[in-house]
Amino acid sequence: MPELRKDPITGTWVIISEERKKRPKYYEIVVDKDLSIPENCPFCPGNEAMTPPETFALRPDHSQPNGPGWELRVVPNKFPALRVEGSLRKSGEGLYDKMSGIGAHEVIIETPRHQHTWFDGDPALIRNTLLAAKARILDLEKDTRFKYIMVFKNFGPTAGATLSHSHSQIIALPVVPLRVQEEIDGARAHFQLKERCIFCDIIQYENEADQRLLMENEHFTVLAPYAPRFSFELAVYPKRHNPAFESTPDIELDNLSSILSETLGKAAKLLNRPDYNFIIHNAPCRNKVGDFYHWHIEFMPVLARVAGFEWGTGFYINPISPEESVQSLKSV
Amino acid sequence: MPELRKDPITGTWVIISEERKKRPKYYEIVVDKDLSIPENCPFCPGNEAMTPPETFALRPDHSQPNGPGWELRVVPNKFPALRVEGSLRKSGEGLYDKMSGIGAHEVIIETPRHQHTWFDGDPALIRNTLLAAKARILDLEKDTRFKYIMVFKNFGPTAGATLSHSHSQIIALPVVPLRVQEEIDGARAHFQLKERCIFCDIIQYENEADQRLLMENEHFTVLAPYAPRFSFELAVYPKRHNPAFESTPDIELDNLSSILSETLGKAAKLLNRPDYNFIIHNAPCRNKVGDFYHWHIEFMPVLARVAGFEWGTGFYINPISPEESVQSLKSV
Repeated sequence: MPELRKDPITGTWVIISEERKKRPKYYEIVVDKDLSIPENCPFCPGNEAMTPPETFALRPDHSQPNGPGWELRVVPNKFPALRVEGSLRKSGEGLYDKMSGIGAHEVIIETPRHQHTWFDGDPALIRNTLLAAKARILDLEKDTRFKYIMVFKNFGPTAGATLSHSHSQIIALPVVPLRVQEEIDGARAHFQLKERCIFCDIIQYENEADQRLLMENEHFTVLAPYAPRFSFELAVYPKRHNPAFESTPDIELDNLSSILSETLGKAAKLLNRPDYNFIIHNAPCRNKVGDFYHWHIEFMPVLARVAGFEWGTGFYINPISPEESVQSLKSV
Repeated sequence: MPELRKDPITGTWVIISEERKKRPKYYEIVVDKDLSIPENCPFCPGNEAMTPPETFALRPDHSQPNGPGWELRVVPNKFPALRVEGSLRKSGEGLYDKMSGIGAHEVIIETPRHQHTWFDGDPALIRNTLLAAKARILDLEKDTRFKYIMVFKNFGPTAGATLSHSHSQIIALPVVPLRVQEEIDGARAHFQLKERCIFCDIIQYENEADQRLLMENEHFTVLAPYAPRFSFELAVYPKRHNPAFESTPDIELDNLSSILSETLGKAAKLLNRPDYNFIIHNAPCRNKVGDFYHWHIEFMPVLARVAGFEWGTGFYINPISPEESVQSLKSV
């Protein structure tokens, strides 16, 4: 059973999950099959039995679950960081606090095509992923043990992906993570002072300043944050104030998939299809933050290693200004 | 001129430093010489002219500065993230806050021997580094523009080192970084409640529990933290309450170098000389935290990639419990 442990000094939660040792390519595991070829790939059609049974699928041909015919599948992670079974137990251990590792950990298998990626200029691939994420969040948040649902995508080995077949991940957590709580606290402080959403203020200011704005369409804005931790880091904001990703109408998700596809295309050309992390920052479940939190996306290409300085301080050195990165991306 | 920018939501500071683009192996730079061989290595004896003039050296033969004969040299970083020159200017930019990138960034070249590392069972190498760090902190903290001085070591390419010759880094910052501030805030809250140092409490509790204690000597304790973010993460604490690394007597630094050498030796055997980050967590300059802050060291081998989940949440998944990691390290 996984366990959540709280750092007694900083309050950071850590999942201690021995299950995860078994997954492919964890440093001490010898992988006996090459998972990069379709015959062995657990995410390829025909290999549905290699994953746990699906929790969601897009099957335009109305085919049966857990066999071929799908356009997209969502399945529980075979090496979950957290477990759905059991009740949430909180307890002390001497000085320390822990709780049982209750949660869900699912994988969105985004396409049956082994080589297909978000860099290939196909907004439908991205739209399917967003629709699946929305459907799974709406289902998972019915479970009141979960306080936060996280959707993210690691693309490429240096971004932490252990399988190359295009996929995203969903994790439902029994606590609100520290970094999300910091965002909420910061946004609340701004709201108490100004009675405005800080994200809405940023969108408006960046639109006027026009130094870090990469592109926009009817519903979304893509910009480089003022203080980006990483080179070519980008943020995608819905223009309309909205705390919760899952309340976004499907028509707006269409709009989002187009602008994401175009953004990824520019990154692919300029940075040679980089590995990247893609994260949806969403309000906590049953959120009480509707006035001041505003869901958004973080996109971070992996170009340099994070080193001791960053770990120790939470202080980042970025060799490329956001103004320069936007200018370079615009030029391709 | 580098610039410090503050994230308007979370309060994280970021250094935007275009200088850093020029350093070896930054992703877009073509390196025209192989820096891994001594003839080209800027840290090897005979190549002193390839670095800026030294700010400190151990020269037992009383040789002249900036030529051979040294046991250890400290030099300004050739690609500094921050600059010493100028006054500290704070200003606003629309919604945002920034300040001039005032600070110091130095490199401790720990040994003249190109291949010598902390894994080689030579406590003298580590002791020289610690003595140099202490001397430089005592000098740098006289500059009242600096609020925090950070000492860290990246070993190996996956830990962020761009040169293989054994070295550490010192960065003097005009702000206290977020993660250090979080430690201070957590430790202060504990002190207000209990009138005790939380680090002293942890050392005592871990000593009694004896589940995560790797080793100890007269002055220092090495243990795996209760909620480690990384597999085989270790913490080294001075047993005696002391907020400031630089006030540690040299005799205790002798003691520290022995226990570090032994710890590194165990990690080398068990994990096959892993890349790692080593960070001294120290009190801020002119600290007012003497009652409740306790300096310490973080040692983090780099075994797996940090992925989207961790970036987005500040929430870590660790597949190896600290109890198991200590048991494995003890057994070698």
